[in-house]
Amino acid sequence: MKLQDVYDARQRLAGITHLTSLEHSHTFSRIADAEIWLKCENQQKTGSFKVRGAYNKIKKSVLTNNVKCVVASSAGNHAQGVAYAARELGPEAYIVMPLATPIAKISATESYGAKVILSGECYDDAYNKAMSIVKEKDAEFIHPFDDGDVIAGQGTVALELLEQMPDLDAVIVPAGGGGLLAGIAYTIKQIAPKIKVYGVQGERADAVKRSFIQKKRISTDSVYTIADGIAVKNPGLLTTGLINKYADDVLTVTDDEIAATIIQLLERAKQVVEPAGATSLALALNKKIPELRGKKVACVLSGGNIDVGFIHKIIERGLVSRGRQMQFSVILTDKPGSLESFSRIMALQQANIISVQYDRVSAELSLNETILHIACEVSGFEHGKKLIENLKQSGFHILFDR
Amino acid sequence: MKLQDVYDARQRLAGITHLTSLEHSHTFSRIADAEIWLKCENQQKTGSFKVRGAYNKIKKSVLTNNVKCVVASSAGNHAQGVAYAARELGPEAYIVMPLATPIAKISATESYGAKVILSGECYDDAYNKAMSIVKEKDAEFIHPFDDGDVIAGQGTVALELLEQMPDLDAVIVPAGGGGLLAGIAYTIKQIAPKIKVYGVQGERADAVKRSFIQKKRISTDSVYTIADGIAVKNPGLLTTGLINKYADDVLTVTDDEIAATIIQLLERAKQVVEPAGATSLALALNKKIPELRGKKVACVLSGGNIDVGFIHKIIERGLVSRGRQMQFSVILTDKPGSLESFSRIMALQQANIISVQYDRVSAELSLNETILHIACEVSGFEHGKKLIENLKQSGFHILFDR
Repeated sequence: MKLQDVYDARQRLAGITHLTSLEHSHTFSRIADAEIWLKCENQQKTGSFKVRGAYNKIKKSVLTNNVKCVVASSAGNHAQGVAYAARELGPEAYIVMPLATPIAKISATESYGAKVILSGECYDDAYNKAMSIVKEKDAEFIHPFDDGDVIAGQGTVALELLEQMPDLDAVIVPAGGGGLLAGIAYTIKQIAPKIKVYGVQGERADAVKRSFIQKKRISTDSVYTIADGIAVKNPGLLTTGLINKYADDVLTVTDDEIAATIIQLLERAKQVVEPAGATSLALALNKKIPELRGKKVACVLSGGNIDVGFIHKIIERGLVSRGRQMQFSVILTDKPGSLESFSRIMALQQANIISVQYDRVSAELSLNETILHIACEVSGFEHGKKLIENLKQSGFHILFDR
Repeated sequence: MKLQDVYDARQRLAGITHLTSLEHSHTFSRIADAEIWLKCENQQKTGSFKVRGAYNKIKKSVLTNNVKCVVASSAGNHAQGVAYAARELGPEAYIVMPLATPIAKISATESYGAKVILSGECYDDAYNKAMSIVKEKDAEFIHPFDDGDVIAGQGTVALELLEQMPDLDAVIVPAGGGGLLAGIAYTIKQIAPKIKVYGVQGERADAVKRSFIQKKRISTDSVYTIADGIAVKNPGLLTTGLINKYADDVLTVTDDEIAATIIQLLERAKQVVEPAGATSLALALNKKIPELRGKKVACVLSGGNIDVGFIHKIIERGLVSRGRQMQFSVILTDKPGSLESFSRIMALQQANIISVQYDRVSAELSLNETILHIACEVSGFEHGKKLIENLKQSGFHILFDR
């Protein structure tokens, strides 16, 4: 790996990828006790940084080896990056995805003109199928991270950061296989070694962190994180070498921290960011690196490809955990009018009922009682407390399921 | 109104407001049959364009009249624009909001240092209260739209558009009171009269459209649209004059069109846009202006201040209308194991159950039957159809509530 590789990558990407904006956030700076800048790779072509490495790799292969066909195995952002790059550059593209891949990801990849092949239960099965296509078609395999040209492509993010904000103190980078982190850490340390580079992973998908601590490549048997884009069991060899040499530290965030950050990005930055992409800001907002206090920190929002159904679930969880939605049960005397008097208090208190379940057969109830299971919207914990107090004062018996 | 007013406004705003990006969208261009560019005022300071007019007005007032206190009545983006501008420029700010204003909007405004006063049932009550504060404090009232300096401030959006994309064919602008539309239409027609300027409103909140057609200011008795930011009964006098003279047409979009566009902006552009801000793109995506076919069209995404709870509801509706969520009921024989056999089919078909309600007491049921009300996730209409067919083939009786 040479720094010139990253400069060459930048030239190849000129006019193809966006120079994504680096945006200062007042609100996030206040929460993080640091000066927070967001590098918006969620706004990159294909919705993530992956197109940088894929394009750089494929362009070089086409120019130097006259490659006519490329193959990748991925159910995520790498698939779209390869498909897009191949369409722009000419070669046929075959993308192998596991059988259970959501239709939205399949059609996003196909929309760039790639041929999608569904095969196997998991990533490893898809990888093996991809390798058989490589042989059959005499094609080039485009690795999602463990490849010098891919890493150099991802390193172009660092060149942009250094130009956009030369007096940066630190960069936080999501890490799965480690391509983006390796590319950025390497590039930053060649040009401005004083700038700190931190990697971030999911708490239960931390192979890069373990590899960093133990100074050798470590694989994990299982990975679990809502940040599916960085749920990788086996980090790269090349990436591990670069990260262990050039990164300053690798840390982790929890699923709850990621989910809360996604909501804050929607509310405050008006940005849609996928779970993997939100890990960098989650690390900053939770002040997990004390020495960043007061420093200028760039958080790489690595991608924005999140399903709206998943946004829906994350908001739902967020509304409950912030007291904006609450669930409780109330015991009513089973006679006409008791629902009406309950409803009147709910209306007076401006609590918006989302769902009601009427239950007359619970074992704990006397024969003339009914349980009402309520979900409602309130403006926050205080409003919720006031509502419950009002109901109690009016003689209603309130139960909390959880 | 002079063009110089808009240039002066731009100078006052330099270094204060963002030069928001103008982004090309491949996907939206394909859907709209035109070349679609998005002017991202949702990424503006305070989350909307309103800060432009408010800052321009307040800065001029401070410089020329040494104003020490400003007052506004607004429950929305204007409130935040005025509060932000006042904090930057020095004067005290009082914002009067109707009593029912959501807490999130109150705290957003207070976070910029303004004093929020809750008063009255509706906007008119809040306005009257604001006027009494103006008298009491000898303050300056900052009108949300019907003011030359405010309109000139909003007109700076047009100056940016003309620089970012000089060969534009048309601009689509959301219109409520009409300040943004008036400012943009006036400015565009002074500099590049060939560029078409269209206003867009909600179907049932169309006072600007009516005023445009009837060539005089028309008020509507009631307004209803999910685009609350542009639900205005009484357009301005000044704005109506400018719009009727300089705009090319004013059209409307429906709530469903707005909601669908918000989801598409989340999915495709990774942008959070409020309902009013999405009307411009909704107009383009629904091809309501035939002469825009193949043309270069800028859609002004005027704001991004949408509550996450509301995003949640919009996604929910969108998932149902796209066949990604479905609801049905199934009649089970009321004996052990019947739920299990139903569940097995659901699992085999990869339908993800969201909620189940068990009902044993419906009048239509025989004594040994139970109704299960199911909500579940599927990948689309086709998957849903296949699921139902499978259940029927296995002997289950399926009912649809709606």
